[in-house]
Amino acid sequence: MRNFRFYAPTKVVFGKDTESKVGGLVKEQNCKKVLVHYGGNSAKKSGLLDRIYDSLKEAGIDYVSLGGVVPNPRLSKVYEGIELCKKEGVDFILAVGGGSVIDSGKAIGYGMVNDCDVWDLYERKAQPKGCLPIGAVLTIAAAGSEMSNSSVITKEEGELKRSCNNDFARCKFAIMNPELTYTLPQYQTQSGCTDILMHTMERYFTTVKNTELTDSIGEALMKTVIHNAKILMKEPENYDARAEVMWASSISHNDLTGCGTIGDWASHQIEHELGGMFDVAHGAGLAAVWGSWARYVYKTDVNRFAKFAVNVLNVPNNFSNPERVALEGIEAMENFYREIGMPTSIKELGINITDEQISEMAQKCTHDNTITIGGFQKLNKEDVEKIFQAAR
Amino acid sequence: MRNFRFYAPTKVVFGKDTESKVGGLVKEQNCKKVLVHYGGNSAKKSGLLDRIYDSLKEAGIDYVSLGGVVPNPRLSKVYEGIELCKKEGVDFILAVGGGSVIDSGKAIGYGMVNDCDVWDLYERKAQPKGCLPIGAVLTIAAAGSEMSNSSVITKEEGELKRSCNNDFARCKFAIMNPELTYTLPQYQTQSGCTDILMHTMERYFTTVKNTELTDSIGEALMKTVIHNAKILMKEPENYDARAEVMWASSISHNDLTGCGTIGDWASHQIEHELGGMFDVAHGAGLAAVWGSWARYVYKTDVNRFAKFAVNVLNVPNNFSNPERVALEGIEAMENFYREIGMPTSIKELGINITDEQISEMAQKCTHDNTITIGGFQKLNKEDVEKIFQAAR
Repeated sequence: MRNFRFYAPTKVVFGKDTESKVGGLVKEQNCKKVLVHYGGNSAKKSGLLDRIYDSLKEAGIDYVSLGGVVPNPRLSKVYEGIELCKKEGVDFILAVGGGSVIDSGKAIGYGMVNDCDVWDLYERKAQPKGCLPIGAVLTIAAAGSEMSNSSVITKEEGELKRSCNNDFARCKFAIMNPELTYTLPQYQTQSGCTDILMHTMERYFTTVKNTELTDSIGEALMKTVIHNAKILMKEPENYDARAEVMWASSISHNDLTGCGTIGDWASHQIEHELGGMFDVAHGAGLAAVWGSWARYVYKTDVNRFAKFAVNVLNVPNNFSNPERVALEGIEAMENFYREIGMPTSIKELGINITDEQISEMAQKCTHDNTITIGGFQKLNKEDVEKIFQAAR
Repeated sequence: MRNFRFYAPTKVVFGKDTESKVGGLVKEQNCKKVLVHYGGNSAKKSGLLDRIYDSLKEAGIDYVSLGGVVPNPRLSKVYEGIELCKKEGVDFILAVGGGSVIDSGKAIGYGMVNDCDVWDLYERKAQPKGCLPIGAVLTIAAAGSEMSNSSVITKEEGELKRSCNNDFARCKFAIMNPELTYTLPQYQTQSGCTDILMHTMERYFTTVKNTELTDSIGEALMKTVIHNAKILMKEPENYDARAEVMWASSISHNDLTGCGTIGDWASHQIEHELGGMFDVAHGAGLAAVWGSWARYVYKTDVNRFAKFAVNVLNVPNNFSNPERVALEGIEAMENFYREIGMPTSIKELGINITDEQISEMAQKCTHDNTITIGGFQKLNKEDVEKIFQAAR
């Protein structure tokens, strides 16, 4: 086990009707004016925004709203939010939505406190010095942004998708009512489950040895998500299944499943290029490339993949042929993706990708082949191209 | 799954040589004068205290020391600490030790900020309004106080052991270097492992249904502790085994393994009476009474005990006879306790308990038979007496 830090200070308020507590939670932060930040119209239509406004009013908290955040949230919306918040004297950002809205809220929070252009933080040209306090009312179980230190923003110009990861942007609180996810389209639910799984898988595939508790917690989480994703295919309003998946979304990405390890994250970086160029659902993009990544790298540690196969996917162990077990595990994972309607190739995302596009994405992903990606196995531009080719 | 709150804001700094970071961590809290609170002489002899003083000096932090905290920490020492801190203008408590030292530090922190007699908080006659900030350098993996909201203090007069649980007393940071636990006596190591297991078992034995992720994380934790406790019987300086147990100590009691459930806690309350009257090692006291508690209550939910037997202790399942599986699980747990040198009866604690003492403890435990204890099965004074009788 490696030395590690673990810091997950977000106050989680989980369960039915918990959105009614939002006013009191903002008040605890001694804040006075809130930006209520959200995505499309569903939060408005469902009455959720009204319930939130009522709770804020009851607590004597002033607010202003900004909707229109889209998946793979855009830098232009972030600038719009910063301008509004400055004009209105906002001192707290309340994100009502999933990872895109929370990430956009974090970016606005950074922009309010740091002197530089906020994009400089995402390009790693500057270090954040702070962030406005953020809270979340979660409506999509997927990104885990409600407990993570991460924010991912896409700059339209150049289709660049970049992340800024800093503890300043950890949510002060996260309200999680599983009922708010009942009406999500099936594809989005399952794309979310895939993203949750991948946040643990990226940490699980490590070359660090002797991480027994972290591994077994990760396995517990992955088995739970796989089981409940299947239930949600048939029963989208099963409260307990929604609750398992929602709680898993948070602890899959608050670092708990990576304590003492070094994660991989190559699949995420490969998918970020896809998402930047083609605007695919993040989880679906991950499912489309993961199998190709796995078959490309599994020989780095066959036993790790065999352990994944046996402990997560119930592949029967074969002590005399771990390679076979490893490959059966990759196949079982892809079969699971198919079962929940996720793609296992880029083509199934509806994209006929060209060689030029593959080359361009591999180029961007490896910063013109000046860096490698992946902690489990280091991948250069050529490796990334081969994985894209295998996944096309 | 029930609605729940989860709040674990402690910054964990885990691994080799991490105690050297203590000065910087106190400085982050903007504090100026530290009480370094510790137990016996081992922290002094091993050079740990000197390393801590050096780190504080380097960060420009002033300090004053108070040692002499004993297991089942005493109220008189708490009063001594409060007086010293007031005289010296202390604004941060640094506990260097295990649960007893951290709990004593929390009590001093409460005493510094609340106007009432600090014991009133433990008797639930007053509610805490705050606490001085606390940090911990952990030297015993057991109580989990480094991430929990709990503090347990014993008042010498009347042998009363009482707890105060409040988020104000959550540590700001916890430094965990597994190497610091190498020199613990075997009995204390294994008593610690038992305490860690029991913090999850108390939460695991619940009548709440549909807590799949919480259950499976708890099972992962219990299996890990059982496995590594056995390793430590033979290899007390096995870094990885010490690390697994130390990390488990924290997440076993930071509420993660109880999210969405209602815990039981009867075994803890029964042991608190034993500990108050006889000053036994807490974990050993828990091992001595748990089997008797389990056999007294398992019929409340035979399947829960069968699940524990199969998923934690690898008892072969027998679908047609879950009661047999449940009882085999209790036996397997007691066999594990014996394997690691823990008692499974009060007699094995070296105590020949009398009927009068049993009656007195059952009386105190149930507040003169005015309350019941236990969330899994409610127990009145008579029930508690029967459990003590079975465990004697």
